[in-house]
Amino acid sequence: MEQIEIETYMQMALAEAQQAAALGEVPIGAIVVKNGRVIGRGHNLREQAQDATAHAELLAIQDACRTIKSWRLEEAALFVTLEPCPMCSGAIINARIGAVYYGASDPKAGTAGTFMNLLTDTRFNHQAAVYPGILATESQAQLRAFFRAIRAKQKAAKKLRQQG
Amino acid sequence: MEQIEIETYMQMALAEAQQAAALGEVPIGAIVVKNGRVIGRGHNLREQAQDATAHAELLAIQDACRTIKSWRLEEAALFVTLEPCPMCSGAIINARIGAVYYGASDPKAGTAGTFMNLLTDTRFNHQAAVYPGILATESQAQLRAFFRAIRAKQKAAKKLRQQG
Repeated sequence: MEQIEIETYMQMALAEAQQAAALGEVPIGAIVVKNGRVIGRGHNLREQAQDATAHAELLAIQDACRTIKSWRLEEAALFVTLEPCPMCSGAIINARIGAVYYGASDPKAGTAGTFMNLLTDTRFNHQAAVYPGILATESQAQLRAFFRAIRAKQKAAKKLRQQG
Repeated sequence: MEQIEIETYMQMALAEAQQAAALGEVPIGAIVVKNGRVIGRGHNLREQAQDATAHAELLAIQDACRTIKSWRLEEAALFVTLEPCPMCSGAIINARIGAVYYGASDPKAGTAGTFMNLLTDTRFNHQAAVYPGILATESQAQLRAFFRAIRAKQKAAKKLRQQG
């Protein structure tokens, strides 16, 4: 895939992440593309849905399966703003996604290069090509801005409590 | 948890797996229990739903989150007839499930002891206690009977084609 195309899809994933942020969710977004067509979209909805599995990648994969009416997403590529966790890496393997492009690395749960790389582990029955660091600066900036805003809110709430 | 209680819940998971088999799905079933109450159930629905994420454990965890209206399944236990794959192990970590009891080991994708143990990896922000081999014989027998029936069907179909 050409760099301009890769960045265009990652911009779409960043826009999904922004939708999560607007709902007060940690901004993570994902897109599934097959044959030049976006077949799946998702953004983190853990708090809104109160569902531990409502990660951006999982929702985008489920959306893609619905779109093409198949659990097999062979030759599809997944774009996600943050490195996948074990659950999402496993979903990528289960769906047989061909390539994964991600933005920021995840030092807390990353399993596509940080703690391990489940996606290239040949003991599983499928491997995906992994391309890290795509628009990583933008993804990190989005995450940092979100957590900065949360901390500012918490500080303001604490100040209010102390005054009251 | 007492052995009799553990086996009772695993029998429920085996009954879930039987429901999957009745639908032509690989028989895998799961149950989530919290404070002596079954709060989630699921059985493999990958083919019926054409959804790569429709594994027994993931569906049971989603069901449990809906039941208690929370993504945090702390102090809950998951019972599953087959060792969890990376996706389901990741979902268990994400939901902060306290204990996992499983039946048969999975030589193809097991990540709760076979290839690795994601559930006890202290690099993640949560660990679960893992109890393998619960009613493993029953779980294996269920899986073997299913695949034996599939092979018999395939053989009969081949014979019919050769005769036709």
